[in-house]
Amino acid sequence: MTIDAAEPRLRADAERNRRRLLDAAAAAFAEKGVGCSVDEIARRAGVGHATAFRHFPTKEGLVAAVVKDRLRQIADMAEAALEQGDADASLRVFLEQTAEMHANDRCLVEEARFVARDPEVLAEKAQTMDAVGRLVARAQAAGALRSDVTANDVFLLVRGVIEATAPLHAVSPELWRRYLAIVLDGLRAGSGAPLPLEAPVGKAPVHAVSDPAA
Amino acid sequence: MTIDAAEPRLRADAERNRRRLLDAAAAAFAEKGVGCSVDEIARRAGVGHATAFRHFPTKEGLVAAVVKDRLRQIADMAEAALEQGDADASLRVFLEQTAEMHANDRCLVEEARFVARDPEVLAEKAQTMDAVGRLVARAQAAGALRSDVTANDVFLLVRGVIEATAPLHAVSPELWRRYLAIVLDGLRAGSGAPLPLEAPVGKAPVHAVSDPAA
Repeated sequence: MTIDAAEPRLRADAERNRRRLLDAAAAAFAEKGVGCSVDEIARRAGVGHATAFRHFPTKEGLVAAVVKDRLRQIADMAEAALEQGDADASLRVFLEQTAEMHANDRCLVEEARFVARDPEVLAEKAQTMDAVGRLVARAQAAGALRSDVTANDVFLLVRGVIEATAPLHAVSPELWRRYLAIVLDGLRAGSGAPLPLEAPVGKAPVHAVSDPAA
Repeated sequence: MTIDAAEPRLRADAERNRRRLLDAAAAAFAEKGVGCSVDEIARRAGVGHATAFRHFPTKEGLVAAVVKDRLRQIADMAEAALEQGDADASLRVFLEQTAEMHANDRCLVEEARFVARDPEVLAEKAQTMDAVGRLVARAQAAGALRSDVTANDVFLLVRGVIEATAPLHAVSPELWRRYLAIVLDGLRAGSGAPLPLEAPVGKAPVHAVSDPAA
């Protein structure tokens, strides 16, 4: 094996270890929340301490990477929804997917507060919100969604459904579906009078990255 | 002054001190959350340590008393709403009042978890939910509210709106009005398809007393 051939393989190994660490971290945060150390996550990932440290010298860096990963997944789901023909159904399916992800990943939502100002997280979040904004605008253009809501509004409502049902997650893990259905009905075009107050803008929290100081 | 005349006055003094302690505790919990000691609350109430201890030997007892007080206020608001002629408008006004109370009292919601199994709190909660249930049933009978929701559903939705907007409370303290309006539109009779899953029953949390173990 020549050096030229070994290099891509080293990079592939590193990428695989990084992926393992991110998956183990996401699972550990979902299960145990803030209490999980990078060492414990390395153990769960089957990756040595030194390797884990090389990839993620700080726990904050690891949390930021997991949050970016989730934001990327949400953006991918939004882009996939935009490929579907039905503007109404595709938005609703997207919101169900997003709610489901967060219902099973609530501790990560808490963790995300600590990295909400990380520049890379903010950049990823901007891309995600751009995709969701296009999905929202398409549903509004199709007359399926009330015209006075924004992508931030929609995320805040999903967040509310998840937070409200979280205490009952153990006994009724899908209860969020009941309340998401009510919220989706309230979001239909022509549902009611114009909404009071302005929608949050700019640094307002999306569900995946809530920032109490925004 | 005879002993017979002094006794009611002593009782009135005790009642006033108790009221002061409850009001100071409610304000302190809303402001500072769990971190507040009974001593600090006594100082804020202008009541001596011994007196405070006589009324509330444990902090848990004080928290339970504050929560019962809030539940009683919610029940009173529901009874007042039932006196109004318009079944639809009175339910909506009641839900706005309840949401407003909780938006300004969010730490108390957290505290309430610790006393959710207190028998007196449970009894007060049952009375409150009975009044809210009558308000919900009246709106349903008037065709103003979808027939497949319960008082517990409605409280969980209010809880969601408050939780979702809590991180933005400092910059937009009334933002909950925007999302409550969407939820209320989704709750209108004939809003959509029948809801999935069963409504939570029995020990399911109301907003004021959420019980993660229920």
